[in-house]
Amino acid sequence: MTTHRFVATEWHNVLGTRPAAFTVASGDTVITETLDAWGFDKDAVQRQPGPNPMNGPIFIEGAAPGDALKVEILRMTPNRATGWTRSSLAGNVVDPESVRDLPSRETVTWSIDRQAGTAQLQPPVKGLEHFVLPLEPMIGCFGVAPSMGQAFSTATSAENGGNMDYRGFGPGATVWFPVAVEGALFFLGDCHAVQGDGEIVGTGIETSYEVEVRLTVEKGRKLVWPRGESATEIFSVGNARPLDQALQHATSDMFNWLCTEYGLSKTAASHLMGQVVRYEVGNVYDPAYTMVCKIPKQWLPTK
Amino acid sequence: MTTHRFVATEWHNVLGTRPAAFTVASGDTVITETLDAWGFDKDAVQRQPGPNPMNGPIFIEGAAPGDALKVEILRMTPNRATGWTRSSLAGNVVDPESVRDLPSRETVTWSIDRQAGTAQLQPPVKGLEHFVLPLEPMIGCFGVAPSMGQAFSTATSAENGGNMDYRGFGPGATVWFPVAVEGALFFLGDCHAVQGDGEIVGTGIETSYEVEVRLTVEKGRKLVWPRGESATEIFSVGNARPLDQALQHATSDMFNWLCTEYGLSKTAASHLMGQVVRYEVGNVYDPAYTMVCKIPKQWLPTK
Amino acid sequence: MTTHRFVATEWHNVLGTRPAAFTVASGDTVITETLDAWGFDKDAVQRQPGPNPMNGPIFIEGAAPGDALKVEILRMTPNRATGWTRSSLAGNVVDPESVRDLPSRETVTWSIDRQAGTAQLQPPVKGLEHFVLPLEPMIGCFGVAPSMGQAFSTATSAENGGNMDYRGFGPGATVWFPVAVEGALFFLGDCHAVQGDGEIVGTGIETSYEVEVRLTVEKGRKLVWPRGESATEIFSVGNARPLDQALQHATSDMFNWLCTEYGLSKTAASHLMGQVVRYEVGNVYDPAYTMVCKIPKQWLPTK
Amino acid sequence: MTTHRFVATEWHNVLGTRPAAFTVASGDTVITETLDAWGFDKDAVQRQPGPNPMNGPIFIEGAAPGDALKVEILRMTPNRATGWTRSSLAGNVVDPESVRDLPSRETVTWSIDRQAGTAQLQPPVKGLEHFVLPLEPMIGCFGVAPSMGQAFSTATSAENGGNMDYRGFGPGATVWFPVAVEGALFFLGDCHAVQGDGEIVGTGIETSYEVEVRLTVEKGRKLVWPRGESATEIFSVGNARPLDQALQHATSDMFNWLCTEYGLSKTAASHLMGQVVRYEVGNVYDPAYTMVCKIPKQWLPTK
Repeated sequence: MTTHRFVATEWHNVLGTRPAAFTVASGDTVITETLDAWGFDKDAVQRQPGPNPMNGPIFIEGAAPGDALKVEILRMTPNRATGWTRSSLAGNVVDPESVRDLPSRETVTWSIDRQAGTAQLQPPVKGLEHFVLPLEPMIGCFGVAPSMGQAFSTATSAENGGNMDYRGFGPGATVWFPVAVEGALFFLGDCHAVQGDGEIVGTGIETSYEVEVRLTVEKGRKLVWPRGESATEIFSVGNARPLDQALQHATSDMFNWLCTEYGLSKTAASHLMGQVVRYEVGNVYDPAYTMVCKIPKQWLPTK
Repeated sequence: MTTHRFVATEWHNVLGTRPAAFTVASGDTVITETLDAWGFDKDAVQRQPGPNPMNGPIFIEGAAPGDALKVEILRMTPNRATGWTRSSLAGNVVDPESVRDLPSRETVTWSIDRQAGTAQLQPPVKGLEHFVLPLEPMIGCFGVAPSMGQAFSTATSAENGGNMDYRGFGPGATVWFPVAVEGALFFLGDCHAVQGDGEIVGTGIETSYEVEVRLTVEKGRKLVWPRGESATEIFSVGNARPLDQALQHATSDMFNWLCTEYGLSKTAASHLMGQVVRYEVGNVYDPAYTMVCKIPKQWLPTK
Repeated sequence: MTTHRFVATEWHNVLGTRPAAFTVASGDTVITETLDAWGFDKDAVQRQPGPNPMNGPIFIEGAAPGDALKVEILRMTPNRATGWTRSSLAGNVVDPESVRDLPSRETVTWSIDRQAGTAQLQPPVKGLEHFVLPLEPMIGCFGVAPSMGQAFSTATSAENGGNMDYRGFGPGATVWFPVAVEGALFFLGDCHAVQGDGEIVGTGIETSYEVEVRLTVEKGRKLVWPRGESATEIFSVGNARPLDQALQHATSDMFNWLCTEYGLSKTAASHLMGQVVRYEVGNVYDPAYTMVCKIPKQWLPTK
Repeated sequence: MTTHRFVATEWHNVLGTRPAAFTVASGDTVITETLDAWGFDKDAVQRQPGPNPMNGPIFIEGAAPGDALKVEILRMTPNRATGWTRSSLAGNVVDPESVRDLPSRETVTWSIDRQAGTAQLQPPVKGLEHFVLPLEPMIGCFGVAPSMGQAFSTATSAENGGNMDYRGFGPGATVWFPVAVEGALFFLGDCHAVQGDGEIVGTGIETSYEVEVRLTVEKGRKLVWPRGESATEIFSVGNARPLDQALQHATSDMFNWLCTEYGLSKTAASHLMGQVVRYEVGNVYDPAYTMVCKIPKQWLPTK
């Protein structure tokens, strides 16, 4: 189990089958610095146009179609003193009339105090003088190459992951992606210092990060959608529009998970989910929305 | 401020302008026993066909169109030793293929241990022997008469409330409804002992309850959608299909709330919501879905 | 079979169980003058506020829950020299950004030439000097009282009909509604001189009309959704959001129709619909959208 | 202007940036034989797995990002005596309960009488003995490489075209695609002998075809979505889910078309569309649905 430092020199605006930029063994750890959503690095130099330039792809030895790629998010360290957000709720998450008079593409700067672990609007906005937010880092966009030679913009998401903007993808979380090509081809980037559910202004606090992830192949798990685990819950992720469809994908996947890997009958899985399921909203701004279906671990049968 | 005991003798399957069954002053407290979703009372006698028979309407003196009816849920005490749920995930929350072989309308019984405060499948289902759930009571369906003489089935929800099945509507919560008729005409029923997010098997643990609520008129608040408050958060509720539309209604309402009652500019409200908003899913089974948009109180400006 | 002239003296903004304004026998014909969507009559006098004030309800003797009410639209004669429309595409049928700079509620006047059978903007708008439209009258909103004492605003639609704004509801069409209460309680109004699919500016050319309909009870047909017939097609109507859901309702209803009244097996009905079905879009502006599923009569088996 | 015969020897299951299989000059005509949706050719030999293997890509000289590729469908000649369809309505276009007992993936054979120009179930199904359908050939899936190196499965559709399954894409129609890469990279295949709106059994009558198209570059038209033209109408195509979103894309595109290329003001375009717009439904089976927004040419201002 080696720890590698991967210094990206080119970036991608799609997740697809591209030549490997870096190769690791299953179980290895990778430390890499990501650009922000517009491609600016820790020195505020734009290295690649947006949207969401990705480091990678990282080829994981031994990964083959049908396997799962396990991604453990070990650490996320902000490496710039500023981030940025948009200033208006997106037109698709509210009655469009209500934001008709706001400048929809304007952005503002946040100072990031890495000592204190907080972010604050710079300059503060009237009424939000108290608004000093603790950092809650998360990876906005990551995933693997999709099947059949497809390639998807980092502005959206699908079975292979992508721009899911789920707050649960932070340090301590484990995520599994369905491997569709040799080596899995893992991409990551677009980290946020803070973000509300849904990314409803179209951004979190967008900045550059140093990220440490451990990448492990799990053979033959035959996933369809991304899955994950926190200290207290397991979860399935659905990416689609409308939100109902994303919810259906995530719920179907959790149902299948409980019936296959946890050995429950369909009836038992229905009872379990029916009374203890929890949902969280990922991105509701992009072409595909993200819904997360969660089960607290305390209610899981022993595997 | 009087406390009344309201013994219902007839029940309603719609929320509409119906003759008042009971009249109270603003600020009074009402204790009443509700039927379960199929109309069975605490003695397992069916008093009214389903869906979701409502106690009421309760006329609150002084309530007029444009006011808000504040409903404080003070206490919910289960008064029957059993509840029931459906045994299959609903066909609209998953890939319909995955539940094709389940009996979609079958129900099972749960024993409710009022001493221990728990519920358990009776008999237990294989794999769920450990599944003893703490009671988390909530009101599935409540609200006021809608505007213009409309009347809506208790199987759905709208601006006036209705069958929202949101887990947050339990003891300790405060809810406000937009008053559309003289006296507000408040209805309630369909209490659940436990429920997962979304009511994705089409039921929570359906049983009868004794409920204690305080009903207070707040003049001229001109609400559009239900709003609420817990110990730690304020929230707006949207009811519509698809879930995206429910989310839009809830998000618009919170945006308006912050701009009017909390005095934020649209830009400040956008920043606040963008970075700290949280969503929770209510009913995703009925004709109208429910989405709840929440802001932690710690981030609110002083009113 | 009598022909009645029904002169409305009050109007309704909901379809619900209201006292009968007029009673006819099954098979009778009714001639009545309708108000426009804002309640203005043929003399441009506002008789009732909007939305879509309805004449009725008309009680049809012998109609009982489970029956169908057959409505033959025999004639529609405009009785005013002007109509009106909104001037901007609705914000929900386009990218909201694209109409941000249009006055969303502004209306304009159309002159209606009853001799020539045409309508024209008054004054003409630059670039549309040639825009003289042949009248294609249709009933925007009609239907019967819904079940269970429900009552729905004339701004929306449901199983009982309502504001469907389907261009096919013009002279020559036959429509069946599911009867849910004694007497059916038929309402009609909101006629349009012309309208594009979807009512995408929020209006057709709104004006007052003299309408002649024949109302006949068909016993025990147990409809769920409105159905209809033109010279060349039969059709089922679904009303819901999103449009996908409306399409599902209409398609399910046509499938049931072919399997029950036309005696096809489910497989045969699938083959028939799969290769010859046609869809048309009704209202896509209101809370519930309307989709129409059609089968050309030439492909129907003999009943 | 040359006419080429392009004999495909490999096929693609994605539309993306792939090496050109054939190169033509702008204005040239191409004749090519397509496989059916599962990759079977005119001799019933499977040459490539499904879904929807594409001939191409064809590189059109001079085409550059920002241009439009004009595709005139000159001729479609069936070259096999059989086609096939699925036997059940798809679970997403109806209440899933109603097709629970049908074999969802079963297929049946249709004989294609190229002399008579008809298709018929082989053997006939009871109740459909009269069901002899005139051929109405159409291209199910065609388009160009998308932007940014993206690549999309032929099971879906997007801005670049793809599996739109619109009945209007038959002989006589002209279609324009937004060029995103040098040479446009045009793909086509998946022809249908007959198809109902929506492809609601998941297939049209799937068979192999000889297709003749003329391919012409129109410089700098800066399209976003596919557009087209029949003898009597112009149309814009939107591809997305839900159907509402597809309708919004198509409607926005038509609005932009009328305002830019036809010189109408936004208000004039709103009036025109509001009263004469027509919609048609393309695919409602795949991950992305297709909606077509049409304006009769008779109402267009002189360009």
